[in-house]
Amino acid sequence: MRYSKQLAERTAKLLLQVKAERPLVHFITNYVTVNDCANICLAIGGSPIMADAIEEACDITSIASSLVINIGTLNKRTVDSMIAAGIKANGCGIPVVLDPVGAGASAFRNEAVKLLLKQVKFSVIRGNLSEIRYLLEGSGNTKGVDASVDDMSQSSTLIAKRSAKRFDCVVAITGKTDTISDGQRVLCIDNGHEELANITGTGCMCTALIGAFCGAASDMLSSAVAGIACMGIAGEIAYGLSSNQGLGSFRTSIMDVISRLREQTFIERARIYEAND
Amino acid sequence: MRYSKQLAERTAKLLLQVKAERPLVHFITNYVTVNDCANICLAIGGSPIMADAIEEACDITSIASSLVINIGTLNKRTVDSMIAAGIKANGCGIPVVLDPVGAGASAFRNEAVKLLLKQVKFSVIRGNLSEIRYLLEGSGNTKGVDASVDDMSQSSTLIAKRSAKRFDCVVAITGKTDTISDGQRVLCIDNGHEELANITGTGCMCTALIGAFCGAASDMLSSAVAGIACMGIAGEIAYGLSSNQGLGSFRTSIMDVISRLREQTFIERARIYEAND
Amino acid sequence: MRYSKQLAERTAKLLLQVKAERPLVHFITNYVTVNDCANICLAIGGSPIMADAIEEACDITSIASSLVINIGTLNKRTVDSMIAAGIKANGCGIPVVLDPVGAGASAFRNEAVKLLLKQVKFSVIRGNLSEIRYLLEGSGNTKGVDASVDDMSQSSTLIAKRSAKRFDCVVAITGKTDTISDGQRVLCIDNGHEELANITGTGCMCTALIGAFCGAASDMLSSAVAGIACMGIAGEIAYGLSSNQGLGSFRTSIMDVISRLREQTFIERARIYEAND
Repeated sequence: MRYSKQLAERTAKLLLQVKAERPLVHFITNYVTVNDCANICLAIGGSPIMADAIEEACDITSIASSLVINIGTLNKRTVDSMIAAGIKANGCGIPVVLDPVGAGASAFRNEAVKLLLKQVKFSVIRGNLSEIRYLLEGSGNTKGVDASVDDMSQSSTLIAKRSAKRFDCVVAITGKTDTISDGQRVLCIDNGHEELANITGTGCMCTALIGAFCGAASDMLSSAVAGIACMGIAGEIAYGLSSNQGLGSFRTSIMDVISRLREQTFIERARIYEAND
Repeated sequence: MRYSKQLAERTAKLLLQVKAERPLVHFITNYVTVNDCANICLAIGGSPIMADAIEEACDITSIASSLVINIGTLNKRTVDSMIAAGIKANGCGIPVVLDPVGAGASAFRNEAVKLLLKQVKFSVIRGNLSEIRYLLEGSGNTKGVDASVDDMSQSSTLIAKRSAKRFDCVVAITGKTDTISDGQRVLCIDNGHEELANITGTGCMCTALIGAFCGAASDMLSSAVAGIACMGIAGEIAYGLSSNQGLGSFRTSIMDVISRLREQTFIERARIYEAND
Repeated sequence: MRYSKQLAERTAKLLLQVKAERPLVHFITNYVTVNDCANICLAIGGSPIMADAIEEACDITSIASSLVINIGTLNKRTVDSMIAAGIKANGCGIPVVLDPVGAGASAFRNEAVKLLLKQVKFSVIRGNLSEIRYLLEGSGNTKGVDASVDDMSQSSTLIAKRSAKRFDCVVAITGKTDTISDGQRVLCIDNGHEELANITGTGCMCTALIGAFCGAASDMLSSAVAGIACMGIAGEIAYGLSSNQGLGSFRTSIMDVISRLREQTFIERARIYEAND
């Protein structure tokens, strides 16, 4: 397997673009990690705005450059706002990113995801393998998710590609290796650190970064790759800086690294490659 | 007064147990400190899930190892979810932990606590002296709370024991000395640091730790002691590491210490003893 | 332009006062930065309580020393609580501080602000130039906001004074130079650091500090100046301590500095002056 320098270089340019554009990113997201989403959006160069009241969701979407919908702590009130804002975003022609947190874990969550996918056209969907699998296969068939690492990797490639075709958008499955597909191409990323899973919201933050890139760039596949690679690289560097201290320092360090991440570092560290079918 | 090495050693074993079990802890909690609760649950070895919509609360509880109910920013919608999830947890036989934040401070809070205690059987209740006193004595009689330190210590022992008998569960009163009773035995802990009171959510985080231990172990008294002792020890070590910097670093350091707390350190530092009646 | 030593010295005394009084500050605020508001309130010496349920908002206000209303993530339910608590605070004679986050950005937000200003008498309103301008001029006329720095500074002085007269309270416009007026006097502050804008909630935290000072002191103009100067000074010192690390460390450092800010440092660094009309 060979990492592509060219892909790394092209993706790195988005770092400059997001800082130049300073996209306004509208988030309807969970209250657990919302502060981290706002701060990481600012750290990469975006401008976050959180607004989930149905009475204003569409107004806020209409002045935004992208919309991020995260169902982490959804409720009836916010699901209505997510759908309304999503439809508005589609009308305005701005990208909508979905983080289907916990899809498959409850009937209510599943129903919400079904409604969202039916009524809103997404540009990027990012989740873990279980979540994306639920979206694709429905009815909670999660057999094989805990299969061997090789199987999971194989499976991710296929599932990402199929989901991307099904939902006609970019689908990103994050995990040990991240797999991102637009239905045609499949890109993989080998960055990241396993300790990221021990900090709440690193998935949400990854989606927030994707939202910022989507608000600044026109290529959704590259935007998804950029967000995920930034998170992975930040995890690696931050762990190196803070591993002898613990999870509190690691978390602080992730935000430090994102706010100082420059093109050159990105190119040196990014491990992106095109997957063979 | 003599600290028990045996109690420290037995409690320390729960540190290994929670990491081995990785219990899924369902939180219905306040939006002020929810991120800290999630992160400290992860740091000790648990797996947090926050879900407060009535439409899914029971589904989430049914896949969890324990349920934590914290009324810090309660409202009508979430109180309904707390009760439904609590009843579900009782039906599933998983432990329920209550943090009656601010009990006694408003009629609404008092009514919610009354309803919860009536409809849900708790395994552990953790609060400060005023809150537990309110639960026991009702009708807002808080006379004597601000009595001398000796009186308060005396009073905590009696109140913890009586409350534990009344509510048929473990009751923990945290303060300068923490007092934990199952109605028969009364255990006390002398760990902690007064500066913990100057960081929001250290009480909630303590309850979150108890929730993680309860999800991994069968002995509720030991689980409550473990959670409270871990928080106290983390406060002491973290203050030592960060006292020359300030409250921001202290807070980060608490999470650092919890994530790296090992059995041996726990045994060396725990100051747990059995109280005489 | 000359900075007033006398103003710095008089304002610095509030630092002692807030620690001596330990005011209970009731917040009805957004879920993005609520944890930061609670922690900065504690760090300066106040005691925060967050409660937004209509069923208890007035009860909580009635035991508080001040009320902070922040509309960052408002919804129908919380707007009702804001108004009820505000009216209650007026009845109790405790100060009410308003942070009109995003005023002008949506019809719902505008309507909420209009209702709040109509039904509640505020002691201090703090916002950025666009927000205060919206309050004063209504109907979304934000022309000129992006004018030259000189124009903006000129404009801030006039707008702060006019708004203060209109709403019969202290109005603070924060920005590169902060402008605070009670309708007669106009005070300006030159502290702060531009990187504060890259951390979410530094405006909310500034308002939280004002709320703490208002709960401890009787002079609202001085309280507003104290809160804003503390935030600015903390930003400067924290940036100096953490600039080579990044935004995560900067954020931690702000809380560190606030918790350790002493009268002498405040006097040495405060750059407060009386503006000429």
